[in-house]
Formats: sequence, structure tokens, C-alpha cells
Amino acid sequence: MIVVLKPDCRSEERQAVVQRIEALGLGVHLSEGRERTIIGAIGDERVLRESGLESLAGVERIVPILKPFKLVSREFQHDDTVIEVDGARIGGNHVQVIAGPCAVESEGLLMEIAAEVKAAGCRFLRGGAYKPRTSPYSFQGLEREGLRLLARARREFGLKTVSELVDARDLRYFDEVDIIQIGARNSQNFRLLQELGRIGKPILLKRGLSGTLNELLMSAEYIASGGNRRILLCERGIRTYEPETRNTLDISAVPVLSGLSHLPVAVDPSHSGGKRELVEPLALAGVAAGAQALLVDVHTRPEEALCDGPQALTPELFRAMMDKIRLVSAALGRTTNQPLNTRVPKTDSSAPF
Amino acid sequence: MIVVLKPDCRSEERQAVVQRIEALGLGVHLSEGRERTIIGAIGDERVLRESGLESLAGVERIVPILKPFKLVSREFQHDDTVIEVDGARIGGNHVQVIAGPCAVESEGLLMEIAAEVKAAGCRFLRGGAYKPRTSPYSFQGLEREGLRLLARARREFGLKTVSELVDARDLRYFDEVDIIQIGARNSQNFRLLQELGRIGKPILLKRGLSGTLNELLMSAEYIASGGNRRILLCERGIRTYEPETRNTLDISAVPVLSGLSHLPVAVDPSHSGGKRELVEPLALAGVAAGAQALLVDVHTRPEEALCDGPQALTPELFRAMMDKIRLVSAALGRTTNQPLNTRVPKTDSSAPF
Amino acid sequence: MIVVLKPDCRSEERQAVVQRIEALGLGVHLSEGRERTIIGAIGDERVLRESGLESLAGVERIVPILKPFKLVSREFQHDDTVIEVDGARIGGNHVQVIAGPCAVESEGLLMEIAAEVKAAGCRFLRGGAYKPRTSPYSFQGLEREGLRLLARARREFGLKTVSELVDARDLRYFDEVDIIQIGARNSQNFRLLQELGRIGKPILLKRGLSGTLNELLMSAEYIASGGNRRILLCERGIRTYEPETRNTLDISAVPVLSGLSHLPVAVDPSHSGGKRELVEPLALAGVAAGAQALLVDVHTRPEEALCDGPQALTPELFRAMMDKIRLVSAALGRTTNQPLNTRVPKTDSSAPF
Amino acid sequence: MIVVLKPDCRSEERQAVVQRIEALGLGVHLSEGRERTIIGAIGDERVLRESGLESLAGVERIVPILKPFKLVSREFQHDDTVIEVDGARIGGNHVQVIAGPCAVESEGLLMEIAAEVKAAGCRFLRGGAYKPRTSPYSFQGLEREGLRLLARARREFGLKTVSELVDARDLRYFDEVDIIQIGARNSQNFRLLQELGRIGKPILLKRGLSGTLNELLMSAEYIASGGNRRILLCERGIRTYEPETRNTLDISAVPVLSGLSHLPVAVDPSHSGGKRELVEPLALAGVAAGAQALLVDVHTRPEEALCDGPQALTPELFRAMMDKIRLVSAALGRTTNQPLNTRVPKTDSSAPF
Repeated sequence: MIVVLKPDCRSEERQAVVQRIEALGLGVHLSEGRERTIIGAIGDERVLRESGLESLAGVERIVPILKPFKLVSREFQHDDTVIEVDGARIGGNHVQVIAGPCAVESEGLLMEIAAEVKAAGCRFLRGGAYKPRTSPYSFQGLEREGLRLLARARREFGLKTVSELVDARDLRYFDEVDIIQIGARNSQNFRLLQELGRIGKPILLKRGLSGTLNELLMSAEYIASGGNRRILLCERGIRTYEPETRNTLDISAVPVLSGLSHLPVAVDPSHSGGKRELVEPLALAGVAAGAQALLVDVHTRPEEALCDGPQALTPELFRAMMDKIRLVSAALGRTTNQPLNTRVPKTDSSAPF
Repeated sequence: MIVVLKPDCRSEERQAVVQRIEALGLGVHLSEGRERTIIGAIGDERVLRESGLESLAGVERIVPILKPFKLVSREFQHDDTVIEVDGARIGGNHVQVIAGPCAVESEGLLMEIAAEVKAAGCRFLRGGAYKPRTSPYSFQGLEREGLRLLARARREFGLKTVSELVDARDLRYFDEVDIIQIGARNSQNFRLLQELGRIGKPILLKRGLSGTLNELLMSAEYIASGGNRRILLCERGIRTYEPETRNTLDISAVPVLSGLSHLPVAVDPSHSGGKRELVEPLALAGVAAGAQALLVDVHTRPEEALCDGPQALTPELFRAMMDKIRLVSAALGRTTNQPLNTRVPKTDSSAPF
Repeated sequence: MIVVLKPDCRSEERQAVVQRIEALGLGVHLSEGRERTIIGAIGDERVLRESGLESLAGVERIVPILKPFKLVSREFQHDDTVIEVDGARIGGNHVQVIAGPCAVESEGLLMEIAAEVKAAGCRFLRGGAYKPRTSPYSFQGLEREGLRLLARARREFGLKTVSELVDARDLRYFDEVDIIQIGARNSQNFRLLQELGRIGKPILLKRGLSGTLNELLMSAEYIASGGNRRILLCERGIRTYEPETRNTLDISAVPVLSGLSHLPVAVDPSHSGGKRELVEPLALAGVAAGAQALLVDVHTRPEEALCDGPQALTPELFRAMMDKIRLVSAALGRTTNQPLNTRVPKTDSSAPF
Repeated sequence: MIVVLKPDCRSEERQAVVQRIEALGLGVHLSEGRERTIIGAIGDERVLRESGLESLAGVERIVPILKPFKLVSREFQHDDTVIEVDGARIGGNHVQVIAGPCAVESEGLLMEIAAEVKAAGCRFLRGGAYKPRTSPYSFQGLEREGLRLLARARREFGLKTVSELVDARDLRYFDEVDIIQIGARNSQNFRLLQELGRIGKPILLKRGLSGTLNELLMSAEYIASGGNRRILLCERGIRTYEPETRNTLDISAVPVLSGLSHLPVAVDPSHSGGKRELVEPLALAGVAAGAQALLVDVHTRPEEALCDGPQALTPELFRAMMDKIRLVSAALGRTTNQPLNTRVPKTDSSAPF
């Protein structure tokens, strides 16, 4: 950590800064420039972050040198984390597509959609039972009944399931959910993250509405520091001034996160754009930028959907998109799942997932 | 609600839109322009928000005409809501200053600070016991012990207390907290908001990190729709691209919220700027723009604070600011509390709170 | 255009609104709802935008129904505009890569880089002679000498050139520049745009630092309304709160612009991310999302570049990226140029550009 | 400047960084930490900004220690700059209100408005002759005729005038304009700024649509480095995601700019909020935060204004606001101008402007 002193910093003030750093067991390195004196603190700067250095008289500002996250960083673990869920893997060179309705609405609809998701080659079915809605007057999800329907689809179609948790007290109902999703609004619900650190299930962690990538990694660090390192980071669009899209997909997040962290990275092209016609181009952009998973809204009757219908793909559009995802993945030497009816023979070593 | 049809919308598609609106019990008003046909839905458009209209073929976009919030709107209740807490009032023409440490750190420090807050004329003491921190390695607050210390200061100094709740399960420990604060990161924790709708305590509800004013009012509507209408809205700075300040205080939020809603509005000049020297100008700006409360970090030893020391005012700076707040309030015909030693005689009718 | 009246709008006020609309030659359509009355104006609403309707007493707000741009809209011209520059085309199904140094720095360097750009299969060489720099103390470009060097490279390598214009008075020096670039900071320099409407050269128009897509299209409309419709729109990243990247590439801009307008769309992956390692993933994402051109910084000695060295690709990285661009383009059924030494035979009908 | 090396930086790479710094005549200070080595460059780091250090192999990032602006900084000149225009001063402890129509529309209207501005005690009349408009189909200003009308009002009412320049070629028509305004869209039109550095008139420089405060000061540095140091900085709202206001007034900009620079700071409450009812609260907030000037839209018939009518104050509202500005200024020990009819006697030493 670098401490920049004010130009008029007095020598007692400077001394106080040095003492504070040394009291914490760190070394001190003084460097007097022409216009500013700076102090380098040698050692684990994380202890300094709590030390109130920037409140000391004579201090102009503090410049951290190290990233504040550790367990989730690429420096801590060089190789990609691959999350394995009952034979299906997320991470590394593979592209997994997680698809399904935004909200579980009825048994009939869910089974209809699950069949389509399965037929298109997907291994993971998404579906919200607890829906955080901006308005108290909006449909809030089927809750426990929704999870029960999802479990039924899971067993019937042999799909793994992904569903959002909004309150730690509901965790006991998530036994048959394979991956727990934490939505944008809970991305910094630190209590919830701490509890997820103590369970064994993989977590799909979405970036906050206007979370920085650093904050997303710190939220992942909350989970990892509790002992659970099976975390899938998800870029889902950030809030900007642009009104043409619901959110602005920060496509750069994919390579930046993959550079900073060993965790796999997903893209949600549905919630980013908020419009059906944007899903395919954004999904393909995600794959081209290196995303290891996609989270896609699919609905057999989007015009009747109780939640986010305008962004749901019909099965037909979904299959067309899946074909292009396969082509782009292959062009870039990456693997992805094959649809049921065109499954490649076992000898194909490039798609072992 | 207005439904704008696509230029190439077919007549069956248009018919389907009309039927959907009528099926919901609303009237339909068709208007064919030269380049677009628009359909007006006559009636309570709130039922339409769930109806998936924008997913129907032939629909270009939907334009809501009414605000989505109701109970908290100025149209629903014309007169200002004034929150009364044991004789102290927040709202209307009065300016209340809520001050104290960002976090409760020790009994000695808290009592020291509470004495200063009291002496400066304040009726409300703030202090965090549960601290949502970006890093899992940072000080997370004294938790229940913090609330116990706060209760002690409350009794000793006759101050009302304000403290942040981050998890509904902790609510039982908040008996001696007079106003429950919901921080920016929980501003859209809808489950928590629903539970706050069922209790009798006033809620200080902060705007999300990048929440819109509409979203803040919808979060307030969550609480109000549960039955609790004693809500203090708080502007605490929003996230923008500007690096010189921690957040960008959206000062326009004060008059905009006061125009849209009957609820009182607070400004937090400490978390907005994140720098001690900005607190006074931002607090004064808040009062000048019409804020009915200020939330200010005060610390007797900011250089030792475990949390947000750089933005805490020393007691000396705090008193100087309080003097200016009184001058500006008076200049604009508003009332505010007087300090202990300069308390105006009872006959002064301008400060009845 | 829809005029929403205030709930307490008086009948004289309403009458005044109706008269104002009728005075402009538009029809009026009144619709009285339960909570609001709205007035629809039938006819070309563009005349209403100047009419001050929203300033009239009793008016709550105005909702435009039509887009404010016309000539550049997909409704005005259904088919893609393809810009042809001496046999090389930008638009439609083709992906053109425009590459070169951020700034022209010396003859030797420029020729070195031009040779690489040519060898990699590109038809267009970019190079800045006039550089808008944030600091008055930074290198401001070689100006006229820079343009002379660029013209030399153009002749020697048979490349078409792209260079930025910052002041209309310099236009006379741009004779041998094939495409005139308008940078983000001049994206709303309307006087300059008007002058470009009167010339015959294609314009590469960048989105403003925080321009909306609507504003970008309105800036294009300035040029088009002057008579010049050969405009290449360029997404170059927008300003957000995220510090890990120089700008946030708004990848959704590609499909959104292509939906709203017939003009071709380019992506600048170099200025977006501002980091060498992000260029390839962002370029590929651009192609996958449908971009018809890429604008890429290439430099043979980036560590000595006078401008934006950290984001410049070395020739080696550039060639590797070009190979992947070809693979992704082909996977999606799009064409792109081939490098000199692997040029496909004339019979290949898929790359006719 | 601090250079942070990558953890795997090789010793030759480190050597190359050291040599590059030394070659520029700066001293080198090496500091090896446990996880990173950092290099401090001792001397005027401004020369390093052009040196491409961050492009060198082994370099992780560069941390500037000094601000990039110099002449406009508080370190360069400690005391406030006060701009004097023919006896009227802007800067220091005084609050100047610059008022008038957004655009000059006709002689009658301008004279009407000028009379009101004068009567309310203002010394400065604003009025746009050249209007940068988003749409090519909008009213673009009366141009030279507008300047002629403004000059007439100037002579008739003895007011100083402020008008916007959008193209350096028009400068010759600005002889009778006392302060030249540079709008948000030209805030980084560096060529224009350079020319303004060579003239003798004061410049009112607006912050860019999403300009940082640092960028605003660098734009001021462009003007100052040319020799013209009579610059009035203006906060006019920045672009954010919030739709309730036209722009988000960054009120913190006032104290931040006043801390970093000796130049006076103005606030534009009209363009910030874009709504009449927000002008007064934002103007008062500006004064309370320390602004030395306000730029206010006033119009005698706002419902007929050709530009920005919804944000113009009527004379009645304007006078009411001026009264409050006087009260708040006085409460904070600042001076402001008095209206014609209530002019205080010459002996009042607190309002010498």
C-alpha cells in the first residue's frame, strides 16, 4: 500500500503515519519526491485497510497495490475451476447453456419448456420459484410449490436445476436444486453469502445492478472464505444511462473476470438486453468473448409469461440460437453439448462433458 | 397505459391486443395515426403490468401513464407525513439531524460521541451494530453487543436511536432501536421490506447504490402496503463514473421525491462524498434543497474509527456545521433543534419539536 | 405524440393544449381515463417537438411515439447501406477490419505497420494525424505532416485510409483520406457534422463518450440531412462506473443500431477496453454480435507509441486475432478478407469484396 | 509516479523500466514488497505520461501521484481567482446570478426579459444565439442576428452579456459579448479551447455531458496554458441512469472544484433538472454548497419558448428565487446583488460588487 502525504504534511504527522504502519507489523519505505512524499508499506496490506490510515492528519490519499480478494484470484489458484454437477461440468473450455423460464408458472408449462430445453441438448434447467420483483403488486413466484415442480422436471428429464434463493431461511427447501442462484439484488447481501459459504452446493452469483467487477469478486470471496469454492460468476448487464436496453451487457467483464479469477464466468443475454431479438447476438458475443456458460430465458408461450415474457425465446428461436452457439464454439476450438437427435458418437473426444 | 403498435402490425394481431386488454376489464381507445396506431387502455393500468402485453405480436412498446406506486404517492395523500418518535418529529417544515458514529465500536467511544451529539442539539443518535462490508475480512460490527451499547446511550442521554438491520432474523434484538435503517444494499431486499411492513417502528429507507427514485418509492410501497407508513426516504449518493467522490449526491432527489411522495426525505452527506471536507457543504445543500433530515457521521477520534473514518466529522466541525444548518434553516423559514447551552426559551414557537 | 394532462388540469388549460396542436395542423384525439386524460396528436409529431407543449399549464408530460431520426432509420430505407470505397465494401454480410496505429508518429513506423496491416488481409489503414488529447501537454499529432505520411502509405500499399478530423478548417488537407473519422468528443459537434453532410466522402461516426444510441443516430441524421448518406456508425465503449476497463463496450449497440438503422455498424475493441489483452475477445464479440467493421489499434513497437500504446496489438497478436475473426465470420456465414499469402482462389464466391 | 510490476516480472524487464525512467531525467526508487515490486519515479511525472511506461513488459499498472493540471490548481495559486467584468465580479465570497432566455428569439422578448433580469438585481444577461441542438430539424438559434439583439439589450440595460460560442470561426461576431460560454458538448473541443486561450475575454466553461471533474480542469488548463486565466467553471448536471431529471446535478462538484482549483465555480440549476419546479431548490443548494455564480433560464412566456421552455422560470418565480438566494447568501456570510428597488445604501460594505 502506498500512502501519499499532503504537500504541507508536517514531520510529526509523517511520523505518526510511519508509527501506525509499523505498529501493524509492516515495513516502511519512504520516498521523498519534489512535490510529494510517499510512504510504501511493505507486507500484507490487507491489515492496513482497517487501520484508518487515510484519516490521519497529513495524509492525502491511500493507493492499494494488491487486489482485496485472495481465494478467488488467479494468483491464488492458477488453473481454471471447473464445477462438476453430477457429470455435467461448467468451466474450462466448455460452453454450458442453462435455459428455462424466468419463473416457474405451472406444471404444464414447466414440463413443456423442460422438454424443449432437454431436446436442444442442454443439461441445466433454470426456473425461478422466488422472484424478487420491483413492485409489491407483481407476481412474486410460486415459492415452495415452484421448487416442487422444478424437482419434478429434474427427475423426469434428468436435468440439473438452477433456481434463485432470496432468503437464507428458504435454504431448506432447495434440496433438489443443483445450483443456487443469487440474483443481482442480493449480490451484496453479505449475510446470505456467508451462509452459502457453509453449504456444499455450487452457487451462480450474479453481478449487482451496478456492481463493479471487484465487488463481484469480493462477494465471491465471502462465499469462498466460508469454504465453498464452487462459484459461477455471472455478468447480467449493468445499469447505465442508455434506454434502448434494459441493462447494458458489459461484455468486457468476461475476459476481465477470467483474467483476475480462476472461477468460471457466465453471461445472461436475456436479462441484459431485455428484448427477444437481442438474446441471440448477445449470447454469441458472450461465447466469442470466452463465457463458459449462458443463462437463457426460454418460454413456450412468452406472450402469457407472468414475468419477463418480452425477453424469452420461443423454442424455435432457442434451437436456432443453439445451432449458432455450436458453430461459434467449434470455430474457436471450444466444446458444447449436442442436441438429443444429433448427438455425436462417443468417440468424439472434444465434447467429454 | 398506451400500447404502440408496430407499423406492420396485422389486424389479427391488433385484435389480439384489444381482446387482452378488454379481458382484464379495461376499456380500449384506438387512435390511428399516419405512421403508428396506438391503443389506450382505460382503467387501472396496474393490472396490465402483469399481462404480458409487450410480448404480443405486433406490439412495438408499452407506455405506462401512471406511476406504479400508490400509497406513498402525493396523489394518494396530499399532506406531508410527519413521523413522530416519542415527541421528536421528522417531516414537514422541520430539519432533524441524526448523528453518530458509522459503527458502534466500544462503550467509551459511543458515550463520548453521544454526549457531543446531544450537546449539539440533536435528538437522534445513529450507530451501526451490523455493518454490511464489501470485504469478508473487514470489521463486521459488534452485532448484539453493539445494540446493547446503543440502548445504554439511548437511556443515558435521552436520545432516540437509529441502527441498521441487515437480516430479518435479527429484528428481535432491535427493541430499543427507535428507527430501523435499511441500507443501500438492502434497498431492494423485498422480503426484508415485507417484514418491515408488519412492524410498528419507523423505517429509514436508503436509496439503492444505483437505484432510481421510482425504485426507492416502490421499495417504500412494499413497506407501506404491509401496513407501516412511517417511512423516511434517504438520498445517500448514487454510483456514477466520477472518481473524486465516493458517490454522487443526487441533490435533485430531494425536491423530486417531495413532489412525488408525502414521505419525509433525508440526505446523508457523509456517505455521499466520503470525505470530511465535503460533509458541511453537502449538508447545507441538502437543507437548502428541502431535506427534512440529515444523517451525519460524527466521531471523536476519526483516525481510529474502524469504519469510514475519513468521512466522520470531529465534534468541533460538527458543531460548526450545526450552527450553519440553523442559519440556513432559519433563512428559509424552517425550524431545527437548538443546542443544549443555547436553548431558546419555551416561548419560541418556531421550534416546537 | 401523446400529451398526458395533470390530474388537476382545468378545462381551459386542456383547451389551450388542443388549440396549440390543431394550430400546427395536427389532428387531436382525446382519451379520458379514470386518473388521467391523455391527448393524442395525429400527424407528423416532429413539428410538435419545437412547439413548447410541455411548457403549457396543465401538462404533466409528453410521450413521443415516433423516433426523431428519419433518413437513417430502417423504416425509411429497408435494405442495408453498403459503403463502397474504391472496390472495398463496408456493410451487409461482410466484416471489414480497419487497422493501424492510433497516431501517425513517423514515416518508418507507419510504413512498417502498414505492411503488416496489408499482409494480414486488411484493405483499410487507420492512423490519426490530429489527436484530441485530454491534456494540453500531450502529443497532439503530426497534423498535416501526418496526413502526408498516411497518403504515402496509401499509395505504396494500395490501402484505403481512415483518419480523424477535429476541425472543419482542416478538411482541405483530407483529400487523400478515404474515410473521415469523427471521434467521440466531436460526436455532437453539430457544425462539423453539417459540413460533412456537404462532402462526398464516407464518414466513420463514433458514439459520444456517453452518447445514447438515439443521439448517435441523430448525429448521423445531421450528416444525412445534408446529403451524405455514406455513414459508418461506430460503438467505441461508453463511460460507466466500472474502473477495470477504459470504457464499457456496449455490445448490444450492434444489434440495436442494426435494427433501428440501415447504416453499417463498426466496433472499436481497442479504445473500449484500453488493454491489449481485451482486444481479441472484444473484437470477436463484435463480429459475433453482427458488427460489419472493426477498428483496431496495431503497432509494431507499442512500448514506444506516443499514444495509447497499452491497447495496441503487436503484429503477431494481430495476425492471430485475424485468424479467429475469419473462423467466427465463416461459422456465422459471413465473409471477410483473406491475408495475402493465403488468398483463396477467385472462384470462392463467399468473399467477393 | 508509481510503477507496479507484475508478480512474474523478470529482472531484465524491471531493468528496462528503470532505464526508461532514468532516460527521462527522473530518479528511481525501488521498493520490493512480498507480493509486488514497485518503482517510484522521482521528479516531474508529467513527462512520464507520454513515455509509454505502461506498455513495457512486466508492468502491471501505473499510479500517477500528482494531478495532471497545473496552472488552474490551488497548489499553483492559493488565492481565489476573481473575474472582473467592467466592475462586476465573479469569484470569492460573492454570488452572481447570470439570467436570461436559453435562446435569443426576438427583439421584443429579449428586451422584456432583460428588463426583468435587471430589475431583479442581476448584472449579467445570458442568451444563446448559436444553439447546439440534438436534432438537425430543431431551431438552431438566430446566430449573428441573435448576437446583435443581445448587444442592443446590453447597451440599453447596462447589463454584461454571456453567450455560447460553438465554432471558432464565429469569434469575430462576439465583440459585444462579455463572457463567452463553452457548452457541455464543446467541453473537450480542444482546438476551440486553444483559441480561447489566446483571447482576452472571460470564459464560462461547462463540464461535459459526462465529463469528470479532472477533465473539466484539464479543459480549463488548455485555456489557461494559452494565456487566458479568466475562467468560470460550470457544473450543469451529468448524465446518469436516473430518468426523473434531465441531468443529475453533481452538487459535490462545487466544493471539490473549489478545493482543487482557484477558479470560481458556477451552477446551472436550469439545465440540470430540466424542470421549472426544480430550479429554485437546486439554485439554493448551489449557493449553500459554495457556488459563486448561478446560470438561470428566465423567460417571460415560457410556453412559447423555442428552446427549453419547461425549465425556464417566469419573472415572478425568478424574483421569488432571488429573494431566497439573498437570504441564504446572507445567512452564510456571503454577498450578492440587490434588486433595483431595494438597493442598499453605499455604506453597506458587505456587497461591494
